[in-house]
Amino acid sequence: MECLKWFSREYHDLNGSHIQVLDRPPTPLEFSRIAHISRPVVIHGLHIPATKDRWSNEYLCDKMKDRPISVSVTPNGLADAVTTAPDGISYFVEPHVELMTMGDLLSKFDGDTTRAYYLQSQNGNVYSAAYFDNVDSDFSEFDVLRPDIPSEIHWCSKSFDKHPDAVNLWIGDSKSITSIHCDPYENIYTVVRGVKYFTLLPPSEGWCLQERTYPHAQYIRASPSTELCIKPSPPSTPTIRWSSVGDPNLPGALPDEANPINVVLQAGETLYLPAGWWHHVRQSDEITVALNWWYDIEMRGMTWVLLTFLRGTDSPMIKGKEDDMEGSEVEEA
Amino acid sequence: MECLKWFSREYHDLNGSHIQVLDRPPTPLEFSRIAHISRPVVIHGLHIPATKDRWSNEYLCDKMKDRPISVSVTPNGLADAVTTAPDGISYFVEPHVELMTMGDLLSKFDGDTTRAYYLQSQNGNVYSAAYFDNVDSDFSEFDVLRPDIPSEIHWCSKSFDKHPDAVNLWIGDSKSITSIHCDPYENIYTVVRGVKYFTLLPPSEGWCLQERTYPHAQYIRASPSTELCIKPSPPSTPTIRWSSVGDPNLPGALPDEANPINVVLQAGETLYLPAGWWHHVRQSDEITVALNWWYDIEMRGMTWVLLTFLRGTDSPMIKGKEDDMEGSEVEEA
Ligand SMILES: O=C(O)CCC(=O)C(=O)O
Ligand SMILES: O=C(O)CCC(=O)C(=O)O
Repeated sequence: MECLKWFSREYHDLNGSHIQVLDRPPTPLEFSRIAHISRPVVIHGLHIPATKDRWSNEYLCDKMKDRPISVSVTPNGLADAVTTAPDGISYFVEPHVELMTMGDLLSKFDGDTTRAYYLQSQNGNVYSAAYFDNVDSDFSEFDVLRPDIPSEIHWCSKSFDKHPDAVNLWIGDSKSITSIHCDPYENIYTVVRGVKYFTLLPPSEGWCLQERTYPHAQYIRASPSTELCIKPSPPSTPTIRWSSVGDPNLPGALPDEANPINVVLQAGETLYLPAGWWHHVRQSDEITVALNWWYDIEMRGMTWVLLTFLRGTDSPMIKGKEDDMEGSEVEEA
Repeated sequence: MECLKWFSREYHDLNGSHIQVLDRPPTPLEFSRIAHISRPVVIHGLHIPATKDRWSNEYLCDKMKDRPISVSVTPNGLADAVTTAPDGISYFVEPHVELMTMGDLLSKFDGDTTRAYYLQSQNGNVYSAAYFDNVDSDFSEFDVLRPDIPSEIHWCSKSFDKHPDAVNLWIGDSKSITSIHCDPYENIYTVVRGVKYFTLLPPSEGWCLQERTYPHAQYIRASPSTELCIKPSPPSTPTIRWSSVGDPNLPGALPDEANPINVVLQAGETLYLPAGWWHHVRQSDEITVALNWWYDIEMRGMTWVLLTFLRGTDSPMIKGKEDDMEGSEVEEA
């Protein structure tokens, strides 16, 4: 644990909390240098058809017609997050997924105030890796929107010398929040409508987020008219390692040593979020639409080993971390 | 120490001991990707006038005439290395430096068998950083050879978006050995004549090299006819942190966990040696001539912090390392 604290202090002393802003997208070479430094960058001027037209509700409904789309539904806006169930146990809870039309979804944002709807299927819902092997093999609920969404960001693909692993569409409002986590992906994230609020922590501050393992559960609904409730998964389901910090923006949620960086991303702006950076994401009250391109992390070299080390997963650090924890693990509850 | 061992094991499991060989120099973008991965690469086909002409002795003498050049002289070929003096103390010993002509130097390699001569002034002896501010401000003992030596390697300068910090000429034979160390530089190293033998260890295996602090000394000679002897520097001279491993190629010199990589670099071949990699360098019996371009390490991001961590310098690791050491520090001897 002392090693991790030393590392995060040195990292912050050297890098501060500065975020670079580019007034135009980088060239492949410029982006390669940026990815090497592995700090978030806000990029202006990434023009894609989706951002040019600022997709209106009418446009989206007109294109999508009554095609079914998979929407996450939760009572509290927390999909893929740690939630304490009525049984007193904290679970990692996945959302209930409902099929509806684009028109249904958009009407929910003004209408249903008791539930949070978030289009966040994030499985490559616009393009997945299969697309790059064979265009016809890759099913997407949003295939009719593909002409507005490039399958890749050329300066990023050129720089990493690979295609994206997944391209995702996100549609939600302020009721939906993405809990803090990190991904093994380089992420190019563009806001199409509304505003996204990112709270970022460097990989070196992972120790501030107190990852624990939680039993798995899912929101279910017995019938369309009944309430959502948390259903624990069978004990054979692997536990999920997740941060115990709910909202890093609440006073006292993070230790004094943490240096969170808040990035407000407006429509038309793009965030480069390097692999391994922790992010908590909120969005504006209006309907907020975003797209992102995930590129697999580079496994060669030291990055992967370092990220694993800093998370404490599977490293001698996890031992130190668990010794540091107070109280018992949730699994033991 | 357990952390360092864990890190080096994981790094080796992921990366192995493979060294990529390119049959032509990379483009700036290709090199940027290579530098990001930060593993050594052997590059063929870097054509510069010096390698094209394979600088003969005649050519070098003809160009250099009787200009004085600074040559390191040692009795054992170990310049900048740990050596035990007659007083029984191990010092970090710098070489004696003698001024001579190129003709003198080249004749030493066949003649004087009692001493090792190595042109290794390595202070940017061909071009230093000053050159890029003002061409005329940068004195070099080898200015007449500059037309044969590009001041920078364009794909490297473009990739790092900077000029070199130093460009060096090295001339020696098998009597001279460079002891194992690492540099805060990205290094492009080209052999012009002869063969260089590199023994490399990744930054993650720094713990295998048992760095210690040694008192400083220098070879001196009272008069040209007397023998070289080790003169300890005044106690106010800072001690030098250096590996205690003399020759990593000797059986038992490294722990079993170390994975040294041997690279034989022939005339006309170029090595990209990433910042922080440990290297021990020997050379062929014939006169061996090499050039290298050092680029400052990128200080932004995690690399510098990681390299510091892995060396244990200034980190909580140094504590662990010193606890691990058997016997007393040399300073205390
Ligand atoms: O937009 C969001 O709500 C979350 C985005 C995210 O986690 C990601 O792109 O990795
Ligand atoms: O060529 C040699 O003897 C040593 C080279 C070296 O240490 C370097 O280029 O950093």
